[in-house]
Amino acid sequence: MSVTAAAGFRAAGVTAGLKASGAPDVALVVNDGPSDAAAAVYTSNRCRAHPVTWSQAASADGRVGAAVLNSGGANCFTGPDGFALTRATAELVGDLVGLGAEDVVVCSTGLIGVAFSRERLLAGVRDAHASLSRGGGSDAAVAITTTDSHHKEAAVTHPSGFTVGGMAKGAGMLAPSLATMLVVLTTDADVPAPRLDAALRAATAATFDRVDSDGCQSTNDTVLLMASGVSGVTPGDAELTETVTAVCHDLALQLVRDAEGADHDIAITVTGAADEADALEVGRSIAANNLFKAAIFGRDPNWGRVMAAIGTTSAAFDPLVLDVSLNGVAVCRGGAPGEDPAAVDLEPRDVAVLVDLHAGTCEATIWTNDLTHAYVHENSAYSS
Amino acid sequence: MSVTAAAGFRAAGVTAGLKASGAPDVALVVNDGPSDAAAAVYTSNRCRAHPVTWSQAASADGRVGAAVLNSGGANCFTGPDGFALTRATAELVGDLVGLGAEDVVVCSTGLIGVAFSRERLLAGVRDAHASLSRGGGSDAAVAITTTDSHHKEAAVTHPSGFTVGGMAKGAGMLAPSLATMLVVLTTDADVPAPRLDAALRAATAATFDRVDSDGCQSTNDTVLLMASGVSGVTPGDAELTETVTAVCHDLALQLVRDAEGADHDIAITVTGAADEADALEVGRSIAANNLFKAAIFGRDPNWGRVMAAIGTTSAAFDPLVLDVSLNGVAVCRGGAPGEDPAAVDLEPRDVAVLVDLHAGTCEATIWTNDLTHAYVHENSAYSS
Repeated sequence: MSVTAAAGFRAAGVTAGLKASGAPDVALVVNDGPSDAAAAVYTSNRCRAHPVTWSQAASADGRVGAAVLNSGGANCFTGPDGFALTRATAELVGDLVGLGAEDVVVCSTGLIGVAFSRERLLAGVRDAHASLSRGGGSDAAVAITTTDSHHKEAAVTHPSGFTVGGMAKGAGMLAPSLATMLVVLTTDADVPAPRLDAALRAATAATFDRVDSDGCQSTNDTVLLMASGVSGVTPGDAELTETVTAVCHDLALQLVRDAEGADHDIAITVTGAADEADALEVGRSIAANNLFKAAIFGRDPNWGRVMAAIGTTSAAFDPLVLDVSLNGVAVCRGGAPGEDPAAVDLEPRDVAVLVDLHAGTCEATIWTNDLTHAYVHENSAYSS
Repeated sequence: MSVTAAAGFRAAGVTAGLKASGAPDVALVVNDGPSDAAAAVYTSNRCRAHPVTWSQAASADGRVGAAVLNSGGANCFTGPDGFALTRATAELVGDLVGLGAEDVVVCSTGLIGVAFSRERLLAGVRDAHASLSRGGGSDAAVAITTTDSHHKEAAVTHPSGFTVGGMAKGAGMLAPSLATMLVVLTTDADVPAPRLDAALRAATAATFDRVDSDGCQSTNDTVLLMASGVSGVTPGDAELTETVTAVCHDLALQLVRDAEGADHDIAITVTGAADEADALEVGRSIAANNLFKAAIFGRDPNWGRVMAAIGTTSAAFDPLVLDVSLNGVAVCRGGAPGEDPAAVDLEPRDVAVLVDLHAGTCEATIWTNDLTHAYVHENSAYSS
């Protein structure tokens, strides 16, 4: 059920003292091979953290032997010392594990623009290396959390005999083009890097890219997939993609359900779209609409705010034939009032918004959360 | 100081009973001529209310003799009866004032998807017509308010002898491409419609289009400018545009200062941009970032959230040379920590965010608000 579910991986999570809380804050995941094939996707934010810059270069050749992660600081806009620290971290892991630094991925999460202790981080890395074990996945998952209320793990074993496991952190700044999150996935399948890359991109496009908790895209997002090859199984593209997607889907929904301050988990499904891009654009526009999100928090079936959000898109649709339902109640039919909105029960945590554009046969679902007092509270007090 | 500040206009505001509160809810503004030149801009939302559809057609020929406005209902997605009501309202005003219905602009504001009483609205229109007066501008401004805490008026008299006056409503759903608002501007200048149109578009582009309170774009936005010609003054393009812009600027800042639940008014100025479009894109991205807005509410000078918002744009910039200051404190210099963020005083209502992209010589300012508990409260309970 974790990043060490797949054979060939060891992990650890330790407390280095980067977090004022004294909670675990350094994680290490090592691929013992025989393969070191890997693939990764990173934030599309142009203001990237130092570890992202480093890791993009490190993973570009499709070979990664270890990932080192810290919470307690994003190491973003921390100046030249920040990049030097990322490099030193990779070099230390390389020395300890017996790899080149260029085969080590580094991930950081926490506040932007705030430096943290080089000594504590490097001591934590040594400690993590000494603690590596086949059962260390959950410790690693705990060490990467920030405002998460719990750690997040998933694993799926395919009937053909290979396993994909993973861990994730993230509970806010969840937005398109990767939620704000760090994800490490591992598999014991024996697959070359280009095929891992294709499977990972397909999986993230259908899962993490469709989570938009608060519309804010982060500087540190990383999703890494490492393959040890230990199982000796080489799955076909379809079964590999399907299995990686299943793990990503599980982790993505865990992120939504743990979003900062959220009171409702909202699945916005857009059907009848001319193409998938239209369905995604409409879903994202609704997911980004603060008025709609505040209404859901208030148990207010205010479907006019859904319409106003749809109207800001470039998707193909005619306003006068739009249908909208909220939790199964068809509140808008053909662009006019339908069933009584008072029949909509918004007490359950899960909310289903269904929009039919009547413009085609494509569909997509975007997951988001409501806008609550707790969201404002948590995000107005995060750094203080 | 109002929509009747310019000579040649009468106005009224009355209570028709559309609002449950019993507050005034129908306004009428009549141009007594001799000119009936006019220009208007409307929401770019593709889900438009019936009165917007009507008024776009009515104003297309550059001739408008009267504007009738109601609060208490947006008349949007209200089905065929909704459009019939807009038409009937225009016809009634036309009959009462002695105009064709096609010279009457209709504006509505309130909840989307909820019908309101035809009888009450039409009775209110008759009542408003009977109440028209040269001093009725403020009554009209009161009657168009919804969640506004006060009515909004402005007027400027140019030394050359013409006046531009106006009224506005709006306190939420303020977004680019027109805030959610109704604005009626009047002038006694003698200017043909095409020149009014040019002046109005220039004025709204520099004012209302740069207000983005909560990123939500509405279905009913309308800005109408009517010219009576009574003053006999025909200003040049520059002085006309400048005067209309001054009134729009005054009203736009009144909208920002009255945004729903806001605790801070934030002016985001982006300098050093390669072109004005880049400056606007960066300003709007910051203005739309919930994490940044919640931080300002929490008096938290979390400049990392500014950087993350800048990074989502396509503007020309190098992250490593970005400068950011908050209320005069240079918290980020050259993409690295600058002065101590603890020196930033975020107690005052006015907040100034200054971003220097160091990529050119263009600049622009976007106005927004913070994200507060009161915003969530007000918008989670609006329709219930």
